[in-house]
Amino acid sequence: LPMVAKIATNDYVGFTFFVGCMAMMAAAAFFFLSMNSFDKKWRTSILVSGLITFIAAVHYWYMRDYWAVNGESPTFFRYVDWILTVPLMCVEFYLILKVAGAKKSLMWKLILLSVVMLVTGYLGETVYRDQAQIWGLISGIAYFVIVYEIWLGGANKIAREAGGAVLSAHRMLCWFVLVGWAIYPIGYMAGTPGWYDGIFSGLSMDVVYNIGDAINKIGFGLVVYNLAVTATSNE
Amino acid sequence: LPMVAKIATNDYVGFTFFVGCMAMMAAAAFFFLSMNSFDKKWRTSILVSGLITFIAAVHYWYMRDYWAVNGESPTFFRYVDWILTVPLMCVEFYLILKVAGAKKSLMWKLILLSVVMLVTGYLGETVYRDQAQIWGLISGIAYFVIVYEIWLGGANKIAREAGGAVLSAHRMLCWFVLVGWAIYPIGYMAGTPGWYDGIFSGLSMDVVYNIGDAINKIGFGLVVYNLAVTATSNE
Ligand SMILES: CC1=C(/C=C/C(C)=C/C=C/C(C)=C/C=O)C(C)(C)CCC1
Ligand SMILES: CC1=C(/C=C/C(C)=C/C=C/C(C)=C/C=O)C(C)(C)CCC1
Repeated sequence: LPMVAKIATNDYVGFTFFVGCMAMMAAAAFFFLSMNSFDKKWRTSILVSGLITFIAAVHYWYMRDYWAVNGESPTFFRYVDWILTVPLMCVEFYLILKVAGAKKSLMWKLILLSVVMLVTGYLGETVYRDQAQIWGLISGIAYFVIVYEIWLGGANKIAREAGGAVLSAHRMLCWFVLVGWAIYPIGYMAGTPGWYDGIFSGLSMDVVYNIGDAINKIGFGLVVYNLAVTATSNE
Repeated sequence: LPMVAKIATNDYVGFTFFVGCMAMMAAAAFFFLSMNSFDKKWRTSILVSGLITFIAAVHYWYMRDYWAVNGESPTFFRYVDWILTVPLMCVEFYLILKVAGAKKSLMWKLILLSVVMLVTGYLGETVYRDQAQIWGLISGIAYFVIVYEIWLGGANKIAREAGGAVLSAHRMLCWFVLVGWAIYPIGYMAGTPGWYDGIFSGLSMDVVYNIGDAINKIGFGLVVYNLAVTATSNE
């Protein structure tokens, strides 16, 4: 017999896992199937948007079953997903600025910072849970440096020189990192012990993370898609 | 109920199996979907990069579950994977040099050597584990002959004559074989008994192999992809 889990009708965590999984699959199909309608210059960026949502779809598939069967947060798989998708989002920043002359070093800097942010976050959520607030702080500093780098550092300079559609896409992605990514620390505080106990403890960590993922992974991809549409029609 | 494995949060072997599996899937999707953006001359090479990572993705899917359920090294599946992917990497050497006039005999020579390398390695890890060091030595000799052949033998001559992007891609692949592939004997020594006991026994064989596979399979493919990008934009 096929193995299907039952989900309680008021299981909101399960609901967001299932909706998230399907939304990621559909987004991946959308990006993969539309990439060839654009000029070569933009295809790789759209392909990477597809990869980000494809990777998420696979992990959400796993996480929704994990949740349905064990009723526990699938923290391990969450971070397996992030350790691949967040660096790929850094690659996106580089790809859209590459046409304007960005260097690979920018990409590697962002990737390194994102790995530090995620590894310290993982340690705080799992192995060193008692010191979650300290690990979260270190993670938050790395996050802050990423925000600085894209808003005010080298990336910003290149985007300003490029102007036009590239600049406005870059700005949109910057907003995603500043506002969209800020959802994650809230989930972290909802799910770990620390000085913030009682402020966020009414929230479910997984619901917060799932909403964050849907906004950031799909939204990010759509910004890139939109850039390709605008740039193609202007030519 | 769907069957989902739980992974301990500090299970680094499990972590590399899961990340590796997803990275291979994403890489395969990347190569398959981008191949048609290039000149026909390069498509087969990129397709083969896709096949190598696709084959690995399927085996990693199996191996990650095998590890999660049994907590043992999936040696059998590891070698099933290698016996297909390593000869395909030899095909890649031939394909990129074919445009410069390489002969099929070069390809068959490399394939034969790689099969000797893998069969002897498998025997040393499993059936004749007590003589692991002798089988490892034979395997290492075959590996050495491959290194010689591509760096100093016939392949090198053809690459030098071709020059340009083909030469530099060939050189990159040569470095992968010399440095990237040298990761594997370290894993072997970490996982089998021999004179090297105590030197490498602090390492986990599977972690070493998984890191090696990620570097070599995806890196190799990206070199070929990069060759196609460079050669296409120069035309
Ligand atoms: C700052 C901070 C964190 C940030 C996490 C972020 C920013 C994750 C982003 C994930 C994305 C964008 C996934 C989508 O693909 C953690 C690790 C929760 C730990 C607490 C402090
Ligand atoms: C020299 C040597 C080995 C070499 C293995 C190699 C070089 C494997 C390469 C695998 C690749 C490149 C897979 C990626 O697709 C063994 C068999 C461990 C046995 C010990 C001696």
